[in-house]
Amino acid sequence: MKIMNLEEIQSILGTLDVLPAIEAGFAAYSKGDAVIPPVAEMLFEQPPGDVHIKYGYLRDDDFYVIKIASGFYDNPQLGLSSSNGLMLLFSQKTGQLQCVLLDEGHLTDIRTAAAGAVAAKYLAPSDVKCIGILGAGIQGRLQLQYLKSVTPCQKVMVWGMNQSELDRYQSDMTALGYTVETTLHAAEVAAACNLIVTVTPSQSPLLKADDIRPGTHITAVGSDTPEKQELDAAILGLADVAVGDSLVQCRQRGEIFKALGANVIAPEKPVELGSIIAGHRAGRVSETQITVADLTGVAVQDIQISKQVYLGSLS
Amino acid sequence: MKIMNLEEIQSILGTLDVLPAIEAGFAAYSKGDAVIPPVAEMLFEQPPGDVHIKYGYLRDDDFYVIKIASGFYDNPQLGLSSSNGLMLLFSQKTGQLQCVLLDEGHLTDIRTAAAGAVAAKYLAPSDVKCIGILGAGIQGRLQLQYLKSVTPCQKVMVWGMNQSELDRYQSDMTALGYTVETTLHAAEVAAACNLIVTVTPSQSPLLKADDIRPGTHITAVGSDTPEKQELDAAILGLADVAVGDSLVQCRQRGEIFKALGANVIAPEKPVELGSIIAGHRAGRVSETQITVADLTGVAVQDIQISKQVYLGSLS
Repeated sequence: MKIMNLEEIQSILGTLDVLPAIEAGFAAYSKGDAVIPPVAEMLFEQPPGDVHIKYGYLRDDDFYVIKIASGFYDNPQLGLSSSNGLMLLFSQKTGQLQCVLLDEGHLTDIRTAAAGAVAAKYLAPSDVKCIGILGAGIQGRLQLQYLKSVTPCQKVMVWGMNQSELDRYQSDMTALGYTVETTLHAAEVAAACNLIVTVTPSQSPLLKADDIRPGTHITAVGSDTPEKQELDAAILGLADVAVGDSLVQCRQRGEIFKALGANVIAPEKPVELGSIIAGHRAGRVSETQITVADLTGVAVQDIQISKQVYLGSLS
Repeated sequence: MKIMNLEEIQSILGTLDVLPAIEAGFAAYSKGDAVIPPVAEMLFEQPPGDVHIKYGYLRDDDFYVIKIASGFYDNPQLGLSSSNGLMLLFSQKTGQLQCVLLDEGHLTDIRTAAAGAVAAKYLAPSDVKCIGILGAGIQGRLQLQYLKSVTPCQKVMVWGMNQSELDRYQSDMTALGYTVETTLHAAEVAAACNLIVTVTPSQSPLLKADDIRPGTHITAVGSDTPEKQELDAAILGLADVAVGDSLVQCRQRGEIFKALGANVIAPEKPVELGSIIAGHRAGRVSETQITVADLTGVAVQDIQISKQVYLGSLS
């Protein structure tokens, strides 16, 4: 049994291309080859906190995975991160624990960024002129970095609500070779960029339908609850292709949920990302289409990323 | 963050009296001070296996606990134990992982044996003449050993279906100072013993109502599913006091579930063990009463035992 801390996990991640595994995970999920029971939840009041246990496996695989993720919202007062987590990898043949990944939530960040790259791979226009990022935090950085393997575009416009946060983002990403413009007006991102990733906890739309130009792809990552919303529901109505990572889940939370509730899309419009990856459904079919991917996060991503890190550590 | 393997856990257990914590856990549970969400479950077909995730916490405590227990039933063919497990102890204030207890299922065995001792403490007659054990496996050994702190009785009669297993039990327990008789007839245990513990996976009653003498206490530990049953339902009808560790759970599985289904006890008859411990309900009130405790296993036991081991390791 192996125990890996965050430093070891980061070091292994540096040697891996996790995208093929994430793609394969989505494809297996959409094919019905993933067993993912309902999320288990535990809530705390004093101090306020929540714990979610996500778990599951792919049939005919070697492992099953249990992820424990917590949010304790008074932690910053103690100088600690609000979010924390670990993943446990077990043998699907014997139940024996194979690896404890003490990732402190980092693998969730990575698998989320990798999913954004997969969505862009299948849905972004072939000629990305400028990448737009809404949200200048950790995930806004990781999404950009993981897009590197699916587009050569190094031109970026980043939106946030706080100029000093934007300045830090600009400085960090410039150091990695990107050319970064900042803006406090989300519409400017829509005007300049044809690949946009939204990674905020917003509860009201940041982008309006009128802002979106033909040929744009948007990946919405931030909304993972019934309350959060980053895109005007009309954008989903306007989109030629609306994609969800898990349609079961997207009907209960996120942008597709909001668009269904607003009656601007037909229930049968959304397509599952894994069905596009597997070639069973069409993704983008022209350079002028507008496409939207709504990523709410699926345990199959946790299964795939933890396996890759563990297997990577053995080789 | 601490990681403890089975050897370290066993070494700490040797220095602890876990009964007070288990008692306090049951009392808190019955008072409504435990938060124990539904068990999470994952099933496997090839090879056959199941994984259960039990989790929860006591309000106003420092920790929450997640236990992962698996059964992979082809494991013995590989020279491995069918059952396995670990417990994770987290801070209830920050969500930070405090301890990984790689107990391989041993702490579940121990907390189950400790619960048997707690039940006997509150329900057994004061003069135990002979302890009867039905089931000569690991739990049959542990139940006897944990009874040491609640009764001085060293006289034992053990029942099993296999004489060589009984002989091993006799030899092992004799080495620990007990005087052990063996039998292949369960009725002989009922005739000789006034404190009986049943720890088998039986799906048909091993003891009949006619066998049970006045003044007997029976703790039924084996039945933890709707299918399993060790006691004739009529024994619960006959009992002056019928006790369950969790009445919510005992209405869905175990001996009380069977007795309710057979209509031999009124729905309001069963009393929760924690209510007796807390002094809110009566346990045994005379030496001639027949009492039955139905233990189906509650996550509060996991919470308490893992805390004790972790705290014991710090001192």
